[in-house]
Amino acid sequence: MAWLSVHGDSSSITSMDVNPDLAKERESPPFPVETLTNILDGGHANTLVRREVETLVHGDPVFSRENIYFQTLEERYEGAIQKTLHFKKKMVQMGWTDDGPQKIILYRILGGEVAFNVHGVFVNSILGLGTDEQIAKWIPLAQNYQIIGSYAQTELGHGTYLRGLETTATFNVESQEFILNTPKTSATKWWPGDMGRSATHAVVLAQLYIKGKAYGMHPFIIQIRSLVDHSPLPGIVVGDIGPKMSFEHIDNGYLLMRNIRVPKENMLSRYSQVLPDGSYVKQGSEKINYFTMILVRVSMLANEVAPALAKASVISIRYSAVRRQSELKPGDPEVQILDYQTQQQKVLPQLATSYAIHFVSAYLGYFYSEVYNKIKVGNFDSLPELHALAAGLKALVTDYCTAGIEVCRRACGGHGYSLLSGLPSLYTKLAASCTYEGENTVLYLQTARFLVKCFAAAQSHQALPESVIYLSSASTNKCRAQTNSDFLNPAIYLEAYEHRAYRHIQNAAHQLQALVQAGAEQYDAWNSTSVQLVQASMAHCHFTTVRVFVDEVKRLGNEPSVQAAIKPLCDLFALHGIFTNAGGFLHDGYLSGQQLDMATASYLDLLAVVRKTAVLLTDAFDFTDEQLNSALGRFDGQVYQRLFEWAQKAPANNKVNPVYEKYLRPLFQSTASKL
Amino acid sequence: MAWLSVHGDSSSITSMDVNPDLAKERESPPFPVETLTNILDGGHANTLVRREVETLVHGDPVFSRENIYFQTLEERYEGAIQKTLHFKKKMVQMGWTDDGPQKIILYRILGGEVAFNVHGVFVNSILGLGTDEQIAKWIPLAQNYQIIGSYAQTELGHGTYLRGLETTATFNVESQEFILNTPKTSATKWWPGDMGRSATHAVVLAQLYIKGKAYGMHPFIIQIRSLVDHSPLPGIVVGDIGPKMSFEHIDNGYLLMRNIRVPKENMLSRYSQVLPDGSYVKQGSEKINYFTMILVRVSMLANEVAPALAKASVISIRYSAVRRQSELKPGDPEVQILDYQTQQQKVLPQLATSYAIHFVSAYLGYFYSEVYNKIKVGNFDSLPELHALAAGLKALVTDYCTAGIEVCRRACGGHGYSLLSGLPSLYTKLAASCTYEGENTVLYLQTARFLVKCFAAAQSHQALPESVIYLSSASTNKCRAQTNSDFLNPAIYLEAYEHRAYRHIQNAAHQLQALVQAGAEQYDAWNSTSVQLVQASMAHCHFTTVRVFVDEVKRLGNEPSVQAAIKPLCDLFALHGIFTNAGGFLHDGYLSGQQLDMATASYLDLLAVVRKTAVLLTDAFDFTDEQLNSALGRFDGQVYQRLFEWAQKAPANNKVNPVYEKYLRPLFQSTASKL
Repeated sequence: MAWLSVHGDSSSITSMDVNPDLAKERESPPFPVETLTNILDGGHANTLVRREVETLVHGDPVFSRENIYFQTLEERYEGAIQKTLHFKKKMVQMGWTDDGPQKIILYRILGGEVAFNVHGVFVNSILGLGTDEQIAKWIPLAQNYQIIGSYAQTELGHGTYLRGLETTATFNVESQEFILNTPKTSATKWWPGDMGRSATHAVVLAQLYIKGKAYGMHPFIIQIRSLVDHSPLPGIVVGDIGPKMSFEHIDNGYLLMRNIRVPKENMLSRYSQVLPDGSYVKQGSEKINYFTMILVRVSMLANEVAPALAKASVISIRYSAVRRQSELKPGDPEVQILDYQTQQQKVLPQLATSYAIHFVSAYLGYFYSEVYNKIKVGNFDSLPELHALAAGLKALVTDYCTAGIEVCRRACGGHGYSLLSGLPSLYTKLAASCTYEGENTVLYLQTARFLVKCFAAAQSHQALPESVIYLSSASTNKCRAQTNSDFLNPAIYLEAYEHRAYRHIQNAAHQLQALVQAGAEQYDAWNSTSVQLVQASMAHCHFTTVRVFVDEVKRLGNEPSVQAAIKPLCDLFALHGIFTNAGGFLHDGYLSGQQLDMATASYLDLLAVVRKTAVLLTDAFDFTDEQLNSALGRFDGQVYQRLFEWAQKAPANNKVNPVYEKYLRPLFQSTASKL
Repeated sequence: MAWLSVHGDSSSITSMDVNPDLAKERESPPFPVETLTNILDGGHANTLVRREVETLVHGDPVFSRENIYFQTLEERYEGAIQKTLHFKKKMVQMGWTDDGPQKIILYRILGGEVAFNVHGVFVNSILGLGTDEQIAKWIPLAQNYQIIGSYAQTELGHGTYLRGLETTATFNVESQEFILNTPKTSATKWWPGDMGRSATHAVVLAQLYIKGKAYGMHPFIIQIRSLVDHSPLPGIVVGDIGPKMSFEHIDNGYLLMRNIRVPKENMLSRYSQVLPDGSYVKQGSEKINYFTMILVRVSMLANEVAPALAKASVISIRYSAVRRQSELKPGDPEVQILDYQTQQQKVLPQLATSYAIHFVSAYLGYFYSEVYNKIKVGNFDSLPELHALAAGLKALVTDYCTAGIEVCRRACGGHGYSLLSGLPSLYTKLAASCTYEGENTVLYLQTARFLVKCFAAAQSHQALPESVIYLSSASTNKCRAQTNSDFLNPAIYLEAYEHRAYRHIQNAAHQLQALVQAGAEQYDAWNSTSVQLVQASMAHCHFTTVRVFVDEVKRLGNEPSVQAAIKPLCDLFALHGIFTNAGGFLHDGYLSGQQLDMATASYLDLLAVVRKTAVLLTDAFDFTDEQLNSALGRFDGQVYQRLFEWAQKAPANNKVNPVYEKYLRPLFQSTASKL
């Protein structure tokens, strides 16, 4: 391809040449981008730690994800293990410990392209559910990867409904052993990560039976593969569940057990124990364990979900600033597509949502710590509120981020469909988050149960937890906005969101009550109201997210230029929500049609405002090119050049096409003579 | 895995054993499913032809797609070519011709897993734009695959905006040749299918220059690879653009040209010609050519888009009937998840949408033929209406189907994330349809331009085309529904949809006018109104779809039991649309909040109604198991058994794990001694 260089612009671009359109977007920033970055990092010190890890990782080819779009499943699987073990070495060298921030930062930097994540769940389940002896025996081995564990809960036939799991563990008094079995196909453990090809052990959730009596689900440590040659142990059938929508690097597995005997001490026994004579003893409170599940939800939002939408925003907005297409004014040069209102309406609300999600995830983390501290001194009062908030926000945030990434992807047109844009894999990966760690509809309904309970409590004048305190007093009936610009007043839109949430919760609660009063069974009434209960839950979580964003903007008062840059994002997030959920605000006349028109006008005006600083606001996320791993999203904006260069690496371009010899050559044999 | 058989249910299931829950759903059907199938096929004769092709294809292992989820890109690419050439042979054997229905049926049966589709565009462009001599020279070769052509229009830097394409074709009077060049990286042809690895030729769209003057885009036939050894010809750089979100079997390619000289007769010259002295002559009307683009949109809806959502509905509804999860009533057996209102609200509206889309796609095909017949006798009057309808419906249908598939996929929980469910690839493939053949936002705006024009015409009392005739008379101001069941009256919801469309179009038209009157330039006013113009366009297309569905239900009067089964789907489609777009109906008080509550109540009641026949209504699509290619969607409903069996075929389960030797064995070396 040597002659390509004669085209002039093909091989002369260095990484220092920033596309002029993009460079212009960065001229004279009206706020210090670096300051905003520090705020997003939660302080300058955190930025420094992050950059230290980035320097280590980006300088090392083992950590490179540059070629993952071309790799086979096999290469992805191997690459993730290699990265993980390599980082383990680096951590030792650097003196970084497992409980420091670096491991999570690595996970974020590599977009989750690491191995042994469910091994981490295996470790945490032993730490949380095991006795001191069990911890002493298993944890050092696990932390040094001398065993690889998986966590086997979900079965082919059961996911969400844990009580329905069918795997059995029967206590045998004579041998002092548990005997584990997979009684039918639907009881096959299915999905556990790290199990398909790697794990030597697993914590298996099974229905405990003692002398014919069932005691519910309990966790057991099982060895599944030989430590000598890695072959499945006798009675174990284990393998990979096959290809998925994403997570190519993870060996999600299945497990069947036939009469697998494990000693009594392999049941994790911090909270319940089987004595030698077969009697069953419960001890302590499992509430704290239940708390671990919440922690997973809280941390996945910050480390996995929020960054994915932020990356999609960065990629699509930088590309929209570089891409020029069509004339707006006849005779003028082609327009940056970021100047089209329809394009702004796609990508800019996603930028605003990225910020909203960032702040609400941080808020949830903060709230989690607060509750955790109370629990440590024995105060469990706030646990239901935390659980409801974490469940609902997990659902809302994963829904919004998944949908938002797809909006960003499509906003990049055909190039957004190329894996090299980085966008398809952000989508296919994040789509899973709507299902794992609690299916979203189930979670919304859990939050709804809390909300309905709080609503009833409010009716009988009981005190309410802070996040639902608005249920204590009926809200105003009419929005007081009189002009377009009233909708840029956070008090105005907060009231509107509060009113909508209140109304949805009230309606669902009333309908439940009406159905029961009309003679319906409680469970039937619940099922018949569940669509509206989900709506109520969504409205509450949406309100919470807007409320947190507004609070966060207030808190930026000591950085007025940053505050001035962020406030329109908050407004945009709120007004975009009103524009796209208009029915919920109009329904009872809280907003009139005329007021909705004002809100819409303000919303559309905001697009033009945010557009001006959009590129700077994406730069503030401070993703490196390596992290974005996108030909469209690079800092330099040389999108066509990168697409072209990256495509050259496709295996198809680097070998003879075997199909030609086999199928095409015979077809073309006599063609030349006919032309 | 021999011992697996001891589990009893593992190896004893034959294809005759239908899951009992699913079997029960099919007991005593209240309508003849076969009759509905014939209606969907457009007549019994069509069903017979389809089944004839199915018998041929499903009996032949070359056509099998059973293993595609495990295949590499290379295997997918080869498999598609093999299938296509194999079918060509079969067609000759069976006496089927290229213009018969069988080729399209094959495409549908194989879910598009065939090669040389853009070769088909190459052929059609020569047929449409070439002179008789050009057709005589190239078409026989192309039809016998003695050359493989691609169609190279889109460039790295330009897609939608054809006038912006940068490839040049300069006429050289002395040599009577055109000289084609790729002047810069952004002018690289990018995306053409069949070009990456297969094509020998291409129709290349390039800016024609004669004696320094530009004449706009013209099509040229270029040879790109040697017919002797398939190597790129001198001056040609051609290759594969790399991996995409789906379409693994297609070699989308790129093309750069440096001083490629082709004889004068290689410009397709039916409508414009360059004479030997360099003078340029236009002849005939290109309108008919423009018509080809519409045909592609019309036929993709019926053959590609509508079936994809229908398949997702079948898969998710069958799975929802088989999957039991959690108790509803304490103590009762676990419930079919199809009995949960929230599950119904996910999958049943998608079933209704599948039918709606099927009918509106057929309607568009019928309207196309009508207009085509008029055009053949020189009457182009209906072309703008057809163009607007095809553009808007292409956008609406691809939007709805893509979103709907994802709803169905998520409704299958974790298993919906496995490629073996068939759902992820339906999504990733169909997502492309929102971008190709006209980016949806651009298309909505084209339709909006037509609508605004018609609205203005109506204001000056001109006659309007039928599909927009409602713009001639202001609609009613208030919905006349007084009870829940009034919303099961098609006249009621049709009026509501009509009103919404009218209002959105009117608002957008008024705003445009107001902005221009206030001094804005026309293009600025258009851009500032474009979000609302898109809304107007969507509302019009949504109304059209409901209208067509209502008409179709009426037409089923001679099959009362089928009509009775389909009518609730039509109602469901309409009321789901009101429920999810409530703002548009409430805005000006057309629906009161109370009426919306009635519509919502009717909508939720309908879910329970449609639920009863949901499985039968999916059976009526008559997809074979081979076509669904889904472990969750099979007719027999043995979902866990199939997932388990299919997973065994994953390459990871059929070879030694090389990663063990390389990375894991060293870690585990001393573990045994410590346990």
